[in-house]
Amino acid sequence: RKRPASGLLPVVEMTRRETFSAAHRLHTYKMNKAENAALYGKCNGLHGHGHNYVLKVTLRGPVSPKTGMLYNLTDLKEVIKTSILDVLDHKHLDKDVAFFKKRVSTTENVAVFCWHQLTTALGNDAFLLAKVFVGETEKNGFTFFGD
Amino acid sequence: RKRPASGLLPVVEMTRRETFSAAHRLHTYKMNKAENAALYGKCNGLHGHGHNYVLKVTLRGPVSPKTGMLYNLTDLKEVIKTSILDVLDHKHLDKDVAFFKKRVSTTENVAVFCWHQLTTALGNDAFLLAKVFVGETEKNGFTFFGD
Amino acid sequence: RKRPASGLLPVVEMTRRETFSAAHRLHTYKMNKAENAALYGKCNGLHGHGHNYVLKVTLRGPVSPKTGMLYNLTDLKEVIKTSILDVLDHKHLDKDVAFFKKRVSTTENVAVFCWHQLTTALGNDAFLLAKVFVGETEKNGFTFFGD
Amino acid sequence: RKRPASGLLPVVEMTRRETFSAAHRLHTYKMNKAENAALYGKCNGLHGHGHNYVLKVTLRGPVSPKTGMLYNLTDLKEVIKTSILDVLDHKHLDKDVAFFKKRVSTTENVAVFCWHQLTTALGNDAFLLAKVFVGETEKNGFTFFGD
Amino acid sequence: RKRPASGLLPVVEMTRRETFSAAHRLHTYKMNKAENAALYGKCNGLHGHGHNYVLKVTLRGPVSPKTGMLYNLTDLKEVIKTSILDVLDHKHLDKDVAFFKKRVSTTENVAVFCWHQLTTALGNDAFLLAKVFVGETEKNGFTFFGD
Amino acid sequence: RKRPASGLLPVVEMTRRETFSAAHRLHTYKMNKAENAALYGKCNGLHGHGHNYVLKVTLRGPVSPKTGMLYNLTDLKEVIKTSILDVLDHKHLDKDVAFFKKRVSTTENVAVFCWHQLTTALGNDAFLLAKVFVGETEKNGFTFFGD
Repeated sequence: RKRPASGLLPVVEMTRRETFSAAHRLHTYKMNKAENAALYGKCNGLHGHGHNYVLKVTLRGPVSPKTGMLYNLTDLKEVIKTSILDVLDHKHLDKDVAFFKKRVSTTENVAVFCWHQLTTALGNDAFLLAKVFVGETEKNGFTFFGD
Repeated sequence: RKRPASGLLPVVEMTRRETFSAAHRLHTYKMNKAENAALYGKCNGLHGHGHNYVLKVTLRGPVSPKTGMLYNLTDLKEVIKTSILDVLDHKHLDKDVAFFKKRVSTTENVAVFCWHQLTTALGNDAFLLAKVFVGETEKNGFTFFGD
Repeated sequence: RKRPASGLLPVVEMTRRETFSAAHRLHTYKMNKAENAALYGKCNGLHGHGHNYVLKVTLRGPVSPKTGMLYNLTDLKEVIKTSILDVLDHKHLDKDVAFFKKRVSTTENVAVFCWHQLTTALGNDAFLLAKVFVGETEKNGFTFFGD
Repeated sequence: RKRPASGLLPVVEMTRRETFSAAHRLHTYKMNKAENAALYGKCNGLHGHGHNYVLKVTLRGPVSPKTGMLYNLTDLKEVIKTSILDVLDHKHLDKDVAFFKKRVSTTENVAVFCWHQLTTALGNDAFLLAKVFVGETEKNGFTFFGD
Repeated sequence: RKRPASGLLPVVEMTRRETFSAAHRLHTYKMNKAENAALYGKCNGLHGHGHNYVLKVTLRGPVSPKTGMLYNLTDLKEVIKTSILDVLDHKHLDKDVAFFKKRVSTTENVAVFCWHQLTTALGNDAFLLAKVFVGETEKNGFTFFGD
Repeated sequence: RKRPASGLLPVVEMTRRETFSAAHRLHTYKMNKAENAALYGKCNGLHGHGHNYVLKVTLRGPVSPKTGMLYNLTDLKEVIKTSILDVLDHKHLDKDVAFFKKRVSTTENVAVFCWHQLTTALGNDAFLLAKVFVGETEKNGFTFFGD
């Protein structure tokens, strides 16, 4: 790992944690009923289930010597709210969100979705986005680095 | 608060924590569409949402001088599994659970439901049940004491 | 513990968790400088320190058979915001809050303050207030039951 | 629930959280080998296992109008350290602690042990002790109220 | 950090969290009694102590466009259970696990042990293993990346 | 990611978590009053506020085959105490800590400060320092890698 060079701005990561509550069901049109049931188990239950998802958005970049900030937290909260929380919170992922019409709503895909939403909403600052973590339970979490 | 009397068995409370993931929607047939929307807000969203519910079951009673236990934890885990987790986990409360066909699935009512399930499953030991806590998010939780 | 009587409404407790960040210093005019330093130790530091306080407000009452709710959570959030968070969050307890001009800002007193603020804001529903918990660190917390 | 009478001191509960790490094995001389294995299951493993126990000590009493405190936290920390942590932390409950020579080291009994240690250490202030919680895992906890 | 190339599968990390409870003692035959006591302090206590260890297993790889999954969680849970939990949970690390007969049971070494167990159990999928975290208390944790 | 080479010592990361409570105010002499208020919002409140900061210090290096340790945890605790906790805990960052006389006390800068304090205190072992995380609330955290 590289050490700090004198005269350069320090580079930090900032992580903002939010939560949202949504319903979903793991079921893909690419497999038949029995295959879906076998692969997804209880997550394939007919009427769906739901989670309190944990979202952690991480930016990485230099600290401004004037403001002492990497990115204004007030702005980041607004970006997360409009691009993710307003779209996913208290919704049914499969029925309410177009992205999941053709993609199964695994948390892997939810993390990828959140990355795309954030890069769009961040605009010129999208290069600062370092990773997006989405936890579906206390035990299972997924991170997408944009790779 | 009363102090321990010599010669009596110590009385303790034991609490077991579990989680389950379920979908639901707040909507009651006792009100019209506009009233439901006004009262329940985003929790009334058409396609529902979901939570990772936290369940805490508390028993209260004397400690056996032979076993050092209030109640065998292995038995309590089985009671909770068959009477609550098998019924609610990875289900849609309103569509999969008969209790909520006629009752709105507020967490208040989920706590009451869990109490009834536990007292039935505990049988002759039901008098040990002291309280049931159900948390719907990190911020909101409800406790029913059987009162 | 009393068991539920048939025909009566179930009585539940609901708890809402919030946080606020504030500065304060433990120092009372009722003691001299040396006594303050001896009693409060590092909490008596000249320029003060601060905490992320955890607030848990608990109501207790019957569940409405119509709405399935003890109290509308949206209303409770507003009550907590206007009566506590708007007054204490990102403030200096001793310098910004009149209640602590004459009272030392121990967390015991913060809990009592929150109770008084809530009973006023709840108005006719104040009888539902069961307890207020205020945590000052991960290790120390205080509860006031209005007694 | 009784409401505060004017002129009386407010009564609060204060809770201090600590942790300690210890080994133990569930095995009682009051049963034979097969009975122990059947009752305690994996907790009866020959060489023992261990836990990071969580301890929560709760005092209940009036707030001093002079100091704003129920009990000096510095003193409570010292009481807990000398009477519990120094005795149980990084120890083998069954082999290092006399109390468990004749009593099986269930967490029920650990909670009762902690209560006795605290009442002795608190001396004249022992009447303030309201409850002792001991958690053995994230899922199982036990509370003793001195009853 | 590299950005996603169009047409490539998204690469994510998935982390599964488990816990296990075990006893152990820090003591190595490579040092004498006094040296062991000096180096390991209270962790060298004669009869050992124990922990609720937290285990986090992280896989890294592409998301299948068919299943939306990096790796089937049901399979990962089984891999972790048979290769780690069945071996370490409710055991004495030094007495019950061959790996620690010749190696001191520091959490550094526990993390390395878990990595080796997982790579064996994962078989042809071992290349997916990205890191293993083992926490021994709420304050101390160790991560092994296979380096 | 590179795989372990036979014959080399395993390289691990160890993370120690601590907390400290401090007051501060976001306000920089590089902007006027209105600009400070606009940029920092409620964090610019005249009398300041405070936080329970969470500190996580991560070292990275080889595990000694003799001791099984990366770095003695007792030593790391002492390093953190003298270089960070004694300087920041129960202090006002802006008024008590020279580093923040000329730098605004954003958590970005607190993380950078902690890094510098640790590298000095670690002396010849400073190359082991991998990252420093400082959380200001449950929702916002910042990491500095020395870059």
